[in-house]
Amino acid sequence: MTSGQLNRIFDCELFFKCENFQKVGAFKFRGATNAVMLLTADQKRRGVVTHSSGNHAAALSLAAAMNGVKAYIVMPENAPVVKKNAVAGYGAEITLCKPTLQSREETCRMIMEREGATLVHPYDNFNVISGQGTAALELLEDQPGIEAIVAPIGGGGLMSGTSTCVKAIDEKIRVIGAEPANADDAFRSFRSGKLLRSDNPATIADGLLTSLSELTFAIIRRNADDIVTVTEDSIKECMLLIWERMKIIIEPSSATVLAVVKENPALFRSKRIGLILSGGNVDLRKLPF
Amino acid sequence: MTSGQLNRIFDCELFFKCENFQKVGAFKFRGATNAVMLLTADQKRRGVVTHSSGNHAAALSLAAAMNGVKAYIVMPENAPVVKKNAVAGYGAEITLCKPTLQSREETCRMIMEREGATLVHPYDNFNVISGQGTAALELLEDQPGIEAIVAPIGGGGLMSGTSTCVKAIDEKIRVIGAEPANADDAFRSFRSGKLLRSDNPATIADGLLTSLSELTFAIIRRNADDIVTVTEDSIKECMLLIWERMKIIIEPSSATVLAVVKENPALFRSKRIGLILSGGNVDLRKLPF
Repeated sequence: MTSGQLNRIFDCELFFKCENFQKVGAFKFRGATNAVMLLTADQKRRGVVTHSSGNHAAALSLAAAMNGVKAYIVMPENAPVVKKNAVAGYGAEITLCKPTLQSREETCRMIMEREGATLVHPYDNFNVISGQGTAALELLEDQPGIEAIVAPIGGGGLMSGTSTCVKAIDEKIRVIGAEPANADDAFRSFRSGKLLRSDNPATIADGLLTSLSELTFAIIRRNADDIVTVTEDSIKECMLLIWERMKIIIEPSSATVLAVVKENPALFRSKRIGLILSGGNVDLRKLPF
Repeated sequence: MTSGQLNRIFDCELFFKCENFQKVGAFKFRGATNAVMLLTADQKRRGVVTHSSGNHAAALSLAAAMNGVKAYIVMPENAPVVKKNAVAGYGAEITLCKPTLQSREETCRMIMEREGATLVHPYDNFNVISGQGTAALELLEDQPGIEAIVAPIGGGGLMSGTSTCVKAIDEKIRVIGAEPANADDAFRSFRSGKLLRSDNPATIADGLLTSLSELTFAIIRRNADDIVTVTEDSIKECMLLIWERMKIIIEPSSATVLAVVKENPALFRSKRIGLILSGGNVDLRKLPF
């Protein structure tokens, strides 16, 4: 999508890739689908497993169902009922665990051993990363002449796929990661050259709380041009701008990409910029405005 | 746009014409543009005038500006500042008046006499009506095989244009008006064969408070197949459904068309239905959910 009003406000040409319209409401469906489709026939018979309470769980459940594969989803027992229902609605088998990373990983391992199921990690997985890269691929096919692409960074799956894909197509296109200043592990890792974590990150962009893995950090270090942090105020302001001017519903994580443009006008002026809106899953009863 | 989820919920194939993405955020831009473009050279030099505090004022202001025509907008002095700013932002000249219909019409007449400006009424105008009909025209061009089209009814401009256009293309396509039960003048007029008004209508669908005119009633009586009323609860529920499932922002008036499908499942089951979403201008700080 494009918006004449936003182009005038920011004095550049913006091309939005609307993953809020993607199945399950987020880009995660791309990676999950690719991972499921690339399983061997034997792996497909045994199913897939992941631990997640978010978009990846729903994405993997639907991708598995559409390919006739059984999905086992490990969720913390305190996960919101609406998320449990979404996953169950796609036909996945839910196993509840204690709300700790240790319990999630142990329960996952138990299912892998018992069922022979294949783990599909939300981002620490080459096939998932490749799938996420198809959003940028489609954007560049639709809009030749794009000079820079901005995508959000959480665990780094989307940015790994995006940067790898874009640089393979045209090294001159700049690839920039958008990260909340309040969860800036990728920014600090990129600058220092060492993988660092965010401890207790607190941001409205709840899809970007996760830290990079060794795998995604290695890919992003090689292929991304820069990582830029944005403030909470900018995220909220740009989320409202997109809702009001474009009449589309995006989650706060998606707004980080426009916030990068807003906070760095000199970098983008008069350029053709691709912005990946990562998703649109937001609680309409708890809006920040 | 289409939505697999909504198709499954309502057991039919829905094709949404998204006028929330139209310029100024509503179908009104179509009629205003057509009216301005069909002015004679002499009329264009003298400008256009209307009295409105809503979408038509913004639509006429922008349509005039894009065609190098001066627009005079009469607004009640108590109109919201944000609406005055929007109209002023398009370069129109605003004349404030008392918040009564009499004062609005008198001020309008005064400007017509002083400037020689042409009145462009929001719906009681053939060229405006023809312009509104282009939404249905595009929908039918994009989606052959549509068996029924549902559009909201307020003053009747959109329904007049829609029904005239659809019946000219294919008499067998059913054209149905969606009206809030709390502002059901068109429903009662259609059934009784006499033009009736809604007195003090109170509905969340604030774009549909207006009553039909003699002109729009005559056209709708001839070309529409039926008018169906919907409850306030249905409007709110369908508005939320479209926001949540389709990730797009629509105003309550737009939700009436899906509410018609929801309240009358037997009429629409297994059919291909066109739904005209009239606009997306809604105060994000005052949502009904």
